[in-house]
Amino acid sequence: MTERDDAPETSATPHWRLQDDYSEGCPQDILDALASSRLESLPGYGTDHHCAEARDAIRTLIGNPQAAVHFVAGGTLANLIVVATLLRPHEAVISVESGHVLGHEAGAIEATGHKVVAVPGEQGKLTPAGVLAALRAHAAAPHVVKPALVYLSNATELGTVYRRDELAALSRCCREHGLLLYVDGARMATALRSPVGDLTPADLAAFTDVFLLGGTKNGALLGEAIVINDPARDVDFAYGVKQRGAMLAKGRVMGLQFAALLAERDIGDGGEHERLYFRLADRANAQAARLSRAIADKGFALWMPTESNQVFPILPRALIARLSTRFAFHVWQEYDEHHAVVRFVASWATPDAAIDALIAAL
Amino acid sequence: MTERDDAPETSATPHWRLQDDYSEGCPQDILDALASSRLESLPGYGTDHHCAEARDAIRTLIGNPQAAVHFVAGGTLANLIVVATLLRPHEAVISVESGHVLGHEAGAIEATGHKVVAVPGEQGKLTPAGVLAALRAHAAAPHVVKPALVYLSNATELGTVYRRDELAALSRCCREHGLLLYVDGARMATALRSPVGDLTPADLAAFTDVFLLGGTKNGALLGEAIVINDPARDVDFAYGVKQRGAMLAKGRVMGLQFAALLAERDIGDGGEHERLYFRLADRANAQAARLSRAIADKGFALWMPTESNQVFPILPRALIARLSTRFAFHVWQEYDEHHAVVRFVASWATPDAAIDALIAAL
Amino acid sequence: MTERDDAPETSATPHWRLQDDYSEGCPQDILDALASSRLESLPGYGTDHHCAEARDAIRTLIGNPQAAVHFVAGGTLANLIVVATLLRPHEAVISVESGHVLGHEAGAIEATGHKVVAVPGEQGKLTPAGVLAALRAHAAAPHVVKPALVYLSNATELGTVYRRDELAALSRCCREHGLLLYVDGARMATALRSPVGDLTPADLAAFTDVFLLGGTKNGALLGEAIVINDPARDVDFAYGVKQRGAMLAKGRVMGLQFAALLAERDIGDGGEHERLYFRLADRANAQAARLSRAIADKGFALWMPTESNQVFPILPRALIARLSTRFAFHVWQEYDEHHAVVRFVASWATPDAAIDALIAAL
Amino acid sequence: MTERDDAPETSATPHWRLQDDYSEGCPQDILDALASSRLESLPGYGTDHHCAEARDAIRTLIGNPQAAVHFVAGGTLANLIVVATLLRPHEAVISVESGHVLGHEAGAIEATGHKVVAVPGEQGKLTPAGVLAALRAHAAAPHVVKPALVYLSNATELGTVYRRDELAALSRCCREHGLLLYVDGARMATALRSPVGDLTPADLAAFTDVFLLGGTKNGALLGEAIVINDPARDVDFAYGVKQRGAMLAKGRVMGLQFAALLAERDIGDGGEHERLYFRLADRANAQAARLSRAIADKGFALWMPTESNQVFPILPRALIARLSTRFAFHVWQEYDEHHAVVRFVASWATPDAAIDALIAAL
Repeated sequence: MTERDDAPETSATPHWRLQDDYSEGCPQDILDALASSRLESLPGYGTDHHCAEARDAIRTLIGNPQAAVHFVAGGTLANLIVVATLLRPHEAVISVESGHVLGHEAGAIEATGHKVVAVPGEQGKLTPAGVLAALRAHAAAPHVVKPALVYLSNATELGTVYRRDELAALSRCCREHGLLLYVDGARMATALRSPVGDLTPADLAAFTDVFLLGGTKNGALLGEAIVINDPARDVDFAYGVKQRGAMLAKGRVMGLQFAALLAERDIGDGGEHERLYFRLADRANAQAARLSRAIADKGFALWMPTESNQVFPILPRALIARLSTRFAFHVWQEYDEHHAVVRFVASWATPDAAIDALIAAL
Repeated sequence: MTERDDAPETSATPHWRLQDDYSEGCPQDILDALASSRLESLPGYGTDHHCAEARDAIRTLIGNPQAAVHFVAGGTLANLIVVATLLRPHEAVISVESGHVLGHEAGAIEATGHKVVAVPGEQGKLTPAGVLAALRAHAAAPHVVKPALVYLSNATELGTVYRRDELAALSRCCREHGLLLYVDGARMATALRSPVGDLTPADLAAFTDVFLLGGTKNGALLGEAIVINDPARDVDFAYGVKQRGAMLAKGRVMGLQFAALLAERDIGDGGEHERLYFRLADRANAQAARLSRAIADKGFALWMPTESNQVFPILPRALIARLSTRFAFHVWQEYDEHHAVVRFVASWATPDAAIDALIAAL
Repeated sequence: MTERDDAPETSATPHWRLQDDYSEGCPQDILDALASSRLESLPGYGTDHHCAEARDAIRTLIGNPQAAVHFVAGGTLANLIVVATLLRPHEAVISVESGHVLGHEAGAIEATGHKVVAVPGEQGKLTPAGVLAALRAHAAAPHVVKPALVYLSNATELGTVYRRDELAALSRCCREHGLLLYVDGARMATALRSPVGDLTPADLAAFTDVFLLGGTKNGALLGEAIVINDPARDVDFAYGVKQRGAMLAKGRVMGLQFAALLAERDIGDGGEHERLYFRLADRANAQAARLSRAIADKGFALWMPTESNQVFPILPRALIARLSTRFAFHVWQEYDEHHAVVRFVASWATPDAAIDALIAAL
Repeated sequence: MTERDDAPETSATPHWRLQDDYSEGCPQDILDALASSRLESLPGYGTDHHCAEARDAIRTLIGNPQAAVHFVAGGTLANLIVVATLLRPHEAVISVESGHVLGHEAGAIEATGHKVVAVPGEQGKLTPAGVLAALRAHAAAPHVVKPALVYLSNATELGTVYRRDELAALSRCCREHGLLLYVDGARMATALRSPVGDLTPADLAAFTDVFLLGGTKNGALLGEAIVINDPARDVDFAYGVKQRGAMLAKGRVMGLQFAALLAERDIGDGGEHERLYFRLADRANAQAARLSRAIADKGFALWMPTESNQVFPILPRALIARLSTRFAFHVWQEYDEHHAVVRFVASWATPDAAIDALIAAL
């Protein structure tokens, strides 16, 4: 749910919907998986063979056979379960100011009793300097909360992606200071396939304690995979999933979607690139890149570099008003008297025609 | 989730699975609905037209055009959201001892800060006498919690169903004492179609403040509808849904399932019986009734009367051991030295062959 | 706060008040301590030398130089801090049905997110059999809460006291099953000085993980000492005290009271008996014993044996009505059509005349 | 507890302690009140006549005979009870960035489930513009929290005080937008007696919904009075006090202190000025003013104007190091390479000699 979900739509009857990456349903492969298992009789609560297969696929992908995997329906649910289950009551979360847990989850983290400490970021990304500043500001035990978990999202809320050395540096910083590193990967697929990124799935096993492998924003009807790299941290974690209402009776629904997304298919040269999960992300990123180039070509500035499937141009307000009659998108924030930052999001299902039409309209 | 979810399966490799009503996926109509809307581009968070259609279908079904409806993925999530959103911190829930919120949700209600007060029931059903006893035991304000919401499930955890006059009496009792009446209807369909029941959908609007119309246990892949009869109680309720992580980005997934389940189909004589939701429940109830009659015919006693889709015979332990090699079911509780109570659950998808095989094995 | 605080007073204008042990202020020694330190300038939050002295006195008393000690204002506050700080969210408390945390703290434990599991006791005392029954009833992880802390009070809510071997057996049971043992000692002084008891302060160090040494009910104006036997469990505990609002700026107020209560005074033969804390408890117990004997002599039955400073006779309702015009006490519960159980509590300050008058009135 | 409680002391063995206003015990009048009621037998939990007298004194002081008053031991406890009892789970608190609830209470508010939203202030004071900015930033229901209560402290954490028109403007703003206005008055006495202030006790009844009348920082051994102006808001509030562990068995201890502090004494011309509560505050303010003038006379700049009992000079680091060998005070924050902001606090008990010595040392 690393999404500016809350901004109002700019058009009641858009022709093309570019305001998020969960406007469409799912690829045919997921429907096929649901269809073929429709009458299969299976044990409940994620103990079925589809979930097992999906867990194995994730372990293989990241190269960590010890990883524990829990499927939950949405990102806010995943975030609050991770925090509530892994932290003691006085422990707090560190997040950049644009972090989803800070402003876009209706106080979900606080509702579990935990404070989220905000620090400034760079292009939406947390830095070790930010983490250290938060620690310094909370040194006076026991009168202040104790930061214990670093939250970041990749891709970020601003569409930027962490480079391998950036995540490595954050990981070192966290380990030096006894902090857990948790990466919200609601848009992990587009981050891993970013044209400017160098992060690999194996890096997630190496650098993070817990991360989310998002399904909803990359083609699943629902489902996020909470991946816990160290089995010792997984002790009793399932209680947390159940207690927060996230243990679906038909857990299979999530398992078989992830299994379908992550199955390795031989499509010529084989290999990792052929997983549906990454093909979908590639398509979303490619559409965003095409749009971003066209925007630049037309002389509009970008507020953030386009590194994944989100594009943040700075547009004249008159143009925004005109576009909003034919396109659904978010006006992100004011820029100056005559301009605002808007956000266009491309998804696995964004048709070429939508991008063509938008480029033409610009 | 009104399910004895926690009992261990009695067989690792069952031939026939009769331990719950969420072992199978979904009817074809639901798949068809998912397929036809697969690439439809829609707004998120339950604001799409499928959800609107499903809400209208529920309002029509219960005859309350004012009712508010929120779709969430599971029953525990629904229960905790209702309690956390509608009660003040010192207010408590009254439930029968066998209530799902008391013992089968890993402390989900308490995790939101609220105590659940247990009272004895009659065949799993709460009575006004039980409610009044709980009030008397919590009279000494402010040193005790203040009961504020009466929780019951229909059908109950023991498969019994409330009669119209029983629910009416509870409703009067609650209104006299300023208590909210909340009915967990994870198995509402089988209750409304119980061969011994006389409760109508309209009664739910008349007698309850909030109720759940369950999807997962009656054919949906996931989804429970929280129905709030008085719009005044719905003020800010959506915040509660979001804050507990239950507002799915692709809310459509639940909306279109409920729309499919509740659509009125003309299948000859038309009318309410023709909703898929009730045809599925009829089938589950019929299979349970057939099994129950056969059990009685063979001379085994029933621990509870068979009023919906659950059957609770008292069986010799030797027989239980033998059955468990071929059937999956729950051993509910000890009965005496040589007998135990077991539970068989029939669902919309239970094949005739399963019931036949079980009857033969008895 | 192990007190039936919530029962209504039976008389609006009592002559003698025997309904609790916190009706009076404090002994002169405590006033003297407050007076002599009145203008002393000290650091805050319990870091002053009076608190240090009181902590040392407690460590000496129980023979555990490693024990950590935190002073908080009241018993409910102590109980909720212990549970909230030491348990993970899915972990639950086991208590006897008459336990103070279950029914007399307005849901304070649940408000921190934790369930309290009730088990039957014997004369208000928890048994290993009760603990094991609770564990068996919560075996089905992760669908049920996980019992993690055993709560008991000594003296119990019913005035009975644990014998040394009873507490030792509970301690063994807890350690075998990975449960913390927490003893609420709001009335620990009267328990340790019970005429029928054999428990020593050192036993509290040996058998419990955490216990409360109560001040309020044994002469302090306010203050309970939370004693944590294993320093490893004390890590970050102070955060819990602060977070729940219990870290008083003038922590000295509690420290100097405990220091005064626990100072060893030479009054002839010296030794433990000479601590004011125990002299006050001896006086409360003696008054209760005198009243109890008189009640028995007059032919009234006792509902519970009188083992500390609470007396629970079964009295005719007519007599209760008559007594209530001159004495304040609690009508504890119905006994039969013509009788009820009442509770008289003696304190360190109960005058002989009050006991004399009550005996005469019987 | 509106106190920078967490900064480390700058000297292990100070000669004079100027780091807070709770370093000393209490005035003789409070000891006398404790002494004279020492053996008085009274009902518990704040239902005694001393508490009644203190409540009446507060009602008289503010001219609101309808006000409800609850005494609790400390400021963090008061703040968390007010928020937890009056807000629904999705509702949030607005506070200036320097607000005590934001950074100095170890996450106490969040531990009750509520988010605190920070806005910039002016000299530590909240403005209507700040409130409106917070509302605009949280307009996107239900994806963000809903601000519902405005928190401010008077005197502020920076020693400044709200003028009558400033509080009136905030009050209007809150009422227009359906927000509760809560004033943390841990240092209310010094604010009401500020040499530059014009706020009256009656203004607190007129402009706020709930406010705190602080005891601990103005001479009480412990105790803060939560004052609720509208009795409708007080419904069930006592449950909140009990549930958070704040209902002291010997509530009298707080009641008689407030009664002693607020009793009107005839000392010549009579009237409000003669309440001990205000005489103590006058003394604290006078000592601070004398110190502040001397600092200015010596050419040091003040970081904040001295409006109550806190003085915030900007001092050279070398001087700070020298002072810290003889005085206890807080180094508040860095100023520049060679200077830091320090905080001196004067209390009702600060001796002239301490101020004299500090002035000489400067």
